[in-house]
Amino acid sequence: MALKIQPLSDRVLIEPMAAEQKTASGLYIPDTAKEKPQQGKVVAVGNGKKDYDMTVKVGDTVLYGKYSGTELKLDGSEYLMMREDDILAIV
Amino acid sequence: MALKIQPLSDRVLIEPMAAEQKTASGLYIPDTAKEKPQQGKVVAVGNGKKDYDMTVKVGDTVLYGKYSGTELKLDGSEYLMMREDDILAIV
Amino acid sequence: MALKIQPLSDRVLIEPMAAEQKTASGLYIPDTAKEKPQQGKVVAVGNGKKDYDMTVKVGDTVLYGKYSGTELKLDGSEYLMMREDDILAIV
Amino acid sequence: MALKIQPLSDRVLIEPMAAEQKTASGLYIPDTAKEKPQQGKVVAVGNGKKDYDMTVKVGDTVLYGKYSGTELKLDGSEYLMMREDDILAIV
Amino acid sequence: MALKIQPLSDRVLIEPMAAEQKTASGLYIPDTAKEKPQQGKVVAVGNGKKDYDMTVKVGDTVLYGKYSGTELKLDGSEYLMMREDDILAIV
Amino acid sequence: MALKIQPLSDRVLIEPMAAEQKTASGLYIPDTAKEKPQQGKVVAVGNGKKDYDMTVKVGDTVLYGKYSGTELKLDGSEYLMMREDDILAIV
Amino acid sequence: MALKIQPLSDRVLIEPMAAEQKTASGLYIPDTAKEKPQQGKVVAVGNGKKDYDMTVKVGDTVLYGKYSGTELKLDGSEYLMMREDDILAIV
Repeated sequence: MALKIQPLSDRVLIEPMAAEQKTASGLYIPDTAKEKPQQGKVVAVGNGKKDYDMTVKVGDTVLYGKYSGTELKLDGSEYLMMREDDILAIV
Repeated sequence: MALKIQPLSDRVLIEPMAAEQKTASGLYIPDTAKEKPQQGKVVAVGNGKKDYDMTVKVGDTVLYGKYSGTELKLDGSEYLMMREDDILAIV
Repeated sequence: MALKIQPLSDRVLIEPMAAEQKTASGLYIPDTAKEKPQQGKVVAVGNGKKDYDMTVKVGDTVLYGKYSGTELKLDGSEYLMMREDDILAIV
Repeated sequence: MALKIQPLSDRVLIEPMAAEQKTASGLYIPDTAKEKPQQGKVVAVGNGKKDYDMTVKVGDTVLYGKYSGTELKLDGSEYLMMREDDILAIV
Repeated sequence: MALKIQPLSDRVLIEPMAAEQKTASGLYIPDTAKEKPQQGKVVAVGNGKKDYDMTVKVGDTVLYGKYSGTELKLDGSEYLMMREDDILAIV
Repeated sequence: MALKIQPLSDRVLIEPMAAEQKTASGLYIPDTAKEKPQQGKVVAVGNGKKDYDMTVKVGDTVLYGKYSGTELKLDGSEYLMMREDDILAIV
Repeated sequence: MALKIQPLSDRVLIEPMAAEQKTASGLYIPDTAKEKPQQGKVVAVGNGKKDYDMTVKVGDTVLYGKYSGTELKLDGSEYLMMREDDILAIV
């Protein structure tokens, strides 16, 4: 399903992965974050700002801090909207 | 009815949608926000700032944070005035 | 009566309207602001700053936040002095 | 008496007027400020900053916020030293 | 093992060294930090920001503050993700 | 005695004057500052910063806020090290 | 012994002097700082930042605030790592 949503400015919409998932790099989320996944897939990316170009692309798997972003529910699934600067890394 | 109101600077006037509404993308607002809609329609847009051009246009449906903006009542309807940077996405 | 007062920098002097007043756009102030008007007429405008040009003009009717500005009494009337960025919109 | 004092940067030295004084524009200070005048005469002006030119001149009557500035006593009189940005208007 | 992880912006991924380790310069971590190493090896480096070029390189041994960074577990090992500005020195 | 000390950046080293001293302009320090002089003589001046040139010179008598600066003792005398922006005026 | 350590950015590594030491200028540290020296010798200097060039050099004797910097132990000696802006003066 394609989401018709355009994040504003330097924001990124992320679909969190379940805590037991594992990326290609074998990266696991920390034990202390069991109840809340810290890894997700980018599903929509903003256009950046006048002096800030976006780095992540739709489809990237990213790591982010435990309390980052605003939760949004869409057709029963949870998403996270956060600023790109809250994303730690692409894995 | 056309509103004769010109938001200043990077502000946007929004007509909030009822919590049970659904956009074309099927996006719902989070359960925890039942009592206060987080989706609305843009009814007026400021002219931006010297180093900031506006992105949203009148008629856009937008998502915004639960506590964003200042409430204004007009002819019995509630509106929200907020800075564009408080808008999360166009849906 | 013409006021001989020159606001400094990006400041604006506003004569608040009574809470029961209504603008051409039919805009009312919110119920929660009954005791303090949030709509007023611009009576004096500063010259702006090096990188900020003023938008409002003398005679404009403006909306502003409930706790914005500094109160000044002049010949028995109350005025509000605030920075233009505290003004929400021209109505 | 001419004061031999050069305020630094964007500072202004002000001689506060008594609360019962009235300017040419008929402006009175607010009732809530009876015990501390909010109107004064500029007696010395700094040279500004690299990107800030001064607006007020010696001899100007100015309005300022109730808690603005640092008090200085000179030959028995009280003066206020404040940054120009704390001055609300020239009256 | 090569980690497939790309830190974002000015971030650096660090593999902390055990507290009893010693660098070529003979530098020890402070006594008060026994339970948490403050020395580590850089394993991945971000691309910097528009006005900030990265200094550290993969393989560098670095010193950092005791509470710097976000912990990430990968295949059983602990890593730290921090901004380069939180790194004190290369040793 | 010539002090061999070079203040860094926009800092100024000041030798505080006794509270009962009086400058050429006849300026006295406020009553509330009896126990701590607020007037002093500049004994050393930093080289400024990339976008900030120093205004005060060695030998200037300056006024400063009561809690400004860091105290330094030298051969039994007290000095104050402060940033030039904490100096109110040259008298 | 030469320390193989490269401070990052605008940081400086300092070897604190004992409280009873005295510089060429005869400068003593304040009484209130007996238990912690505020004078030291620069042993390593960072490369500065894009818009900030370093002023202090290895070998300089510097003054600094009592709570400035991060302590690092090296071969039994205590060092302080601080940003150059925390250094008050070269003596």
